[in-house]
Amino acid sequence: MTDIHTDAAQIEQAVADYFAAFNETDDVSRTARLRAAFVEESRYSDPLSDAAGRDAIGEMMAGVRQQYPGMEVRRTSAIDRHHDLVRFSWDIVMPDGSALIDGIDVGRVAEDGRLVDIRGFFGVAAPV
Amino acid sequence: MTDIHTDAAQIEQAVADYFAAFNETDDVSRTARLRAAFVEESRYSDPLSDAAGRDAIGEMMAGVRQQYPGMEVRRTSAIDRHHDLVRFSWDIVMPDGSALIDGIDVGRVAEDGRLVDIRGFFGVAAPV
Repeated sequence: MTDIHTDAAQIEQAVADYFAAFNETDDVSRTARLRAAFVEESRYSDPLSDAAGRDAIGEMMAGVRQQYPGMEVRRTSAIDRHHDLVRFSWDIVMPDGSALIDGIDVGRVAEDGRLVDIRGFFGVAAPV
Repeated sequence: MTDIHTDAAQIEQAVADYFAAFNETDDVSRTARLRAAFVEESRYSDPLSDAAGRDAIGEMMAGVRQQYPGMEVRRTSAIDRHHDLVRFSWDIVMPDGSALIDGIDVGRVAEDGRLVDIRGFFGVAAPV
C-alpha cells in the first residue's frame, strides 16, 4: 500500500483505456477496453452514478452514451499520482463543440496499473 | 454503498474534527479529535505520507506539526458529497500569514459519518 510498485506507463494505459471505454459506441469494444482499464471488482461513483463491478461500470457508460449521443470525454490534465492513487481532470464535449460538464476523478490502482475505483466529482468544490 | 445513509451534519462534524486534529498541539486532545474524525481502520495518504490506521494518522499529524510549528490547516471549500464520498479543498498557513501549500482531499465515510480514508493531492492537476 505504501510503495509505488506500479509502472507509470501501465497507469497511463489503464487511464487511456478508461477514457476510450467511455467514448466507445460498440459494446464488444467497450468491454475489451474496460477489461484493460478496470479490475473486475471495481467501483465507479460520481454524483449521478454508483456502479459496483466492471460489468455495471460498462452498463453505466452505455447508459450515459445513450443519453448524450456523440459525447466525448476528454482528459484535461496530466495524471497526478502518488502511492497507489491518481488524480486527473476531464470534461465532456458534445459533437457541436459545446461543453456538457467537467470535473475531476480520484482513483486507486491495482499492482498491474488497472483501476480499482474511480471517485468522480463535477466542477470544483464551492468556496466557503 | 449506493445510498446516502449518513447525516450531512455527522459528516460536517467528522471533517471539522479532522481539521481540528491536524491543528491540535496536545497529543491527548489530538487523539480525542481523531477518534471523532476517523474509524480505527482508516487510511490517510498524500504525496508525502501514507498512514494506515488511526494511530498512524495521529503520528503523521504530530510529525507535520513538528516540522511546521504554528501551521494551521484550513478548509477552503464547502464539503462536496455524493454517495459515501466527500471532496473539499484546503490550505495551510503559517503564523506569519504566509501560505505553505494547498490542495484537495477526497474521502470516503462510514455510516456514522466518520472518515474511512482521505486521499490528498497538492495544488491542482497540471493541464495537459
